[in-house]
Amino acid sequence: MKAYRELSENELLALKDQLHKEYEEAKAKGLQLDMSRGKPSPAQLDMEKDFLGMVISDADVTTETGVDCRNYGLLDGIPEARTLLADMLEVSADKVIVFGNSSLNVMYDTIARSMLLGVLGNTPWCKLDKVKFLCPVPGYDRHFAITEQFGIEMINIPMKEDGPDMDLVEKYVNEDSAVKGIWCVPKYSNPQGYTYSDETVKRFAALKPAAEDFRIFWDNAYAVHDLYEDRSDKLLEILGECEKAGNPDMVYEFCSTSKVTFPGAGIAAIVTSPANVEQIKAAMTIQTIGYDKLNQLRHTKYFKNIDGMKAHMKRHAAIMRPKFEAVLKVLESELAGLGIGSWTNPNGGYFISFDAMEGCAKAIVEKCKEAGVILTGAGATYPYKKDPKDSNIRLAPTFPSPEELSVATDLFVLCVKLVSVEKLLHN
Amino acid sequence: MKAYRELSENELLALKDQLHKEYEEAKAKGLQLDMSRGKPSPAQLDMEKDFLGMVISDADVTTETGVDCRNYGLLDGIPEARTLLADMLEVSADKVIVFGNSSLNVMYDTIARSMLLGVLGNTPWCKLDKVKFLCPVPGYDRHFAITEQFGIEMINIPMKEDGPDMDLVEKYVNEDSAVKGIWCVPKYSNPQGYTYSDETVKRFAALKPAAEDFRIFWDNAYAVHDLYEDRSDKLLEILGECEKAGNPDMVYEFCSTSKVTFPGAGIAAIVTSPANVEQIKAAMTIQTIGYDKLNQLRHTKYFKNIDGMKAHMKRHAAIMRPKFEAVLKVLESELAGLGIGSWTNPNGGYFISFDAMEGCAKAIVEKCKEAGVILTGAGATYPYKKDPKDSNIRLAPTFPSPEELSVATDLFVLCVKLVSVEKLLHN
Repeated sequence: MKAYRELSENELLALKDQLHKEYEEAKAKGLQLDMSRGKPSPAQLDMEKDFLGMVISDADVTTETGVDCRNYGLLDGIPEARTLLADMLEVSADKVIVFGNSSLNVMYDTIARSMLLGVLGNTPWCKLDKVKFLCPVPGYDRHFAITEQFGIEMINIPMKEDGPDMDLVEKYVNEDSAVKGIWCVPKYSNPQGYTYSDETVKRFAALKPAAEDFRIFWDNAYAVHDLYEDRSDKLLEILGECEKAGNPDMVYEFCSTSKVTFPGAGIAAIVTSPANVEQIKAAMTIQTIGYDKLNQLRHTKYFKNIDGMKAHMKRHAAIMRPKFEAVLKVLESELAGLGIGSWTNPNGGYFISFDAMEGCAKAIVEKCKEAGVILTGAGATYPYKKDPKDSNIRLAPTFPSPEELSVATDLFVLCVKLVSVEKLLHN
Repeated sequence: MKAYRELSENELLALKDQLHKEYEEAKAKGLQLDMSRGKPSPAQLDMEKDFLGMVISDADVTTETGVDCRNYGLLDGIPEARTLLADMLEVSADKVIVFGNSSLNVMYDTIARSMLLGVLGNTPWCKLDKVKFLCPVPGYDRHFAITEQFGIEMINIPMKEDGPDMDLVEKYVNEDSAVKGIWCVPKYSNPQGYTYSDETVKRFAALKPAAEDFRIFWDNAYAVHDLYEDRSDKLLEILGECEKAGNPDMVYEFCSTSKVTFPGAGIAAIVTSPANVEQIKAAMTIQTIGYDKLNQLRHTKYFKNIDGMKAHMKRHAAIMRPKFEAVLKVLESELAGLGIGSWTNPNGGYFISFDAMEGCAKAIVEKCKEAGVILTGAGATYPYKKDPKDSNIRLAPTFPSPEELSVATDLFVLCVKLVSVEKLLHN
């Protein structure tokens, strides 16, 4: 098929009529499908039958070290859970503090703590006139929502296939002491599924921040979330690189089992240097009596060790692969060569990133919604929900079935075509 | 026995020698007992056998309304958990947001939110020159630790048997707009076990705060924690009283099941007006993906309703009563009439409050420690750990067995006597 840009006005008009007809037919089907959220499917969760039964009797409730997990104690998590999550991120267990079920909450609290109490003796951010964060874009809307809520100014940094534009990152971080952080999803990034290259990680580790309290917020949400056995990305472990580069305290790394066990009842962790761990624990002593250790125990008893977790993730991948492939197949067969959109084909993670022609994303999402297919809101992948090119759309293919995803993607490509034709006719 | 103050110097000297001998003998026993913390005993936790098995199979994981508790959703808690905790505090379920396992964390977050985002549109507290909190004393050390961490100035308010000195509370709250809050444990107060009278609650509800964003932090930690069936305190429900008095938004109430099910794995809640609920939920949407709903489900399936919870608490009381009585028996038989100490005899809660002669508390706690009995640090029940009279000691009789408590209290009264005699000799 010819690229749309090469079509004459008459050809475009004819195409528009035909697409319109198809759209009205599709609308009449009364679809109700949701591709908006990175949400595991019931089939993934049903695999957990044995998980919930792991901690039932009084005999199940103590740690390896003999601590009763029902009672108070062990603020930083049970030893076996610290080890499991340390192995997940390839660090030592002393760098890990285990929290409750939401890594988002850990990130929020980390920023709130920096705002109110400051980072390792530096002025609390709430006492500064201006605090800025770098935001690789497109990125994760919930990261941006946190920094927006706290009135932190967000600066867009373009993402490339090997990570954020590091020339820009270095310029901002090394020159502007108001820049206190950067949001990163370094492996299978949300929404592209890109993984930072070794060189990118090394350039991060070698930053020379103007602000002593600059921190990299390294949200390693998809560390063990490969889709394929023969096509998986490797991420260089950043804490070790930072130590080597003389920046041992520069990273707060986050992870969780929300997309390993249960989104609503997993365990989360922060992984960072001993000095940072010490400050965080000192604040935690005031903040909480500690997190749910019984749920930590369920995780360690079920997986036994990191190999158990990895085997489990292969079963998840087997459920998810056909879903990604269902979406990709429709995109490829319907849009390849038309010049009206490009998309990623990730090796892992939860999303496919789609870039429409400039100025089309909002209209496409709206058209899909009208016909019963919910996508992540256009703009959501940018700070302040403002995609300057109105181009990026995040596709989340994990919750619906492969059949539903084919139907939903059929509608999606139809909307892409229709909106693109209208755009070309109006230019 | 004669009051110590009426003894002659020679009598005191002779008594001192004898007590010293007894103390050295006690020390030689090498005791290792801990009365420092309000911690349920293993016997209370072992009652939970059936609790942990409540949510195991895939058939157990949905709410009454059909929501899958393993996945994302229901930010404010599952409906049945909201109802259970609402019934616990005698309010309607729409006023309840269910959180994770730590009500301390909910209180901390409530203050952190007020600091960073402000209360219902008022200036964030971190932007103010001065923020003050009223602290009924003696009180709960972990409350004071939160306000201290955030640099909030704490003002002592003397506690009486029917609650805080309300003349003082009214004066501060109604006249000083820097006073933004007061910490209250209104039922079975920590450490005295006092319950606020109806008049006290009504005076709270009728406050006319100088600050629009003044809030009562109503930590109803022991709402269902009666020790006796025929001697239980009733607390007037404060939200209703505040509504009647035209102050609907003035209270943040907190509760948890930490001392109902498990300290490490209970559920907590905030209970407050619709306007406050709305603000809190708006902030929570950014902060977290929601709390562990499976654990909420365990609670509601196990208790079924508030009657189930109350029956359960009677079983707890049966375990705890002999412990309180073991301590009280020794205090009564060894110290009554000596004029060197007074103590409370609560109808519920987790503590007994002991007041030594002025200037003796630190020395008593130290002497106990030397002989192997750990008490809550002297001063802990006051802001900044400063008991102006060095007099109050909190006794926590829930974790050790009744036999251990008798032994520990024997040592305690011995130390009270010894330190008091030494004090009288040095005056």
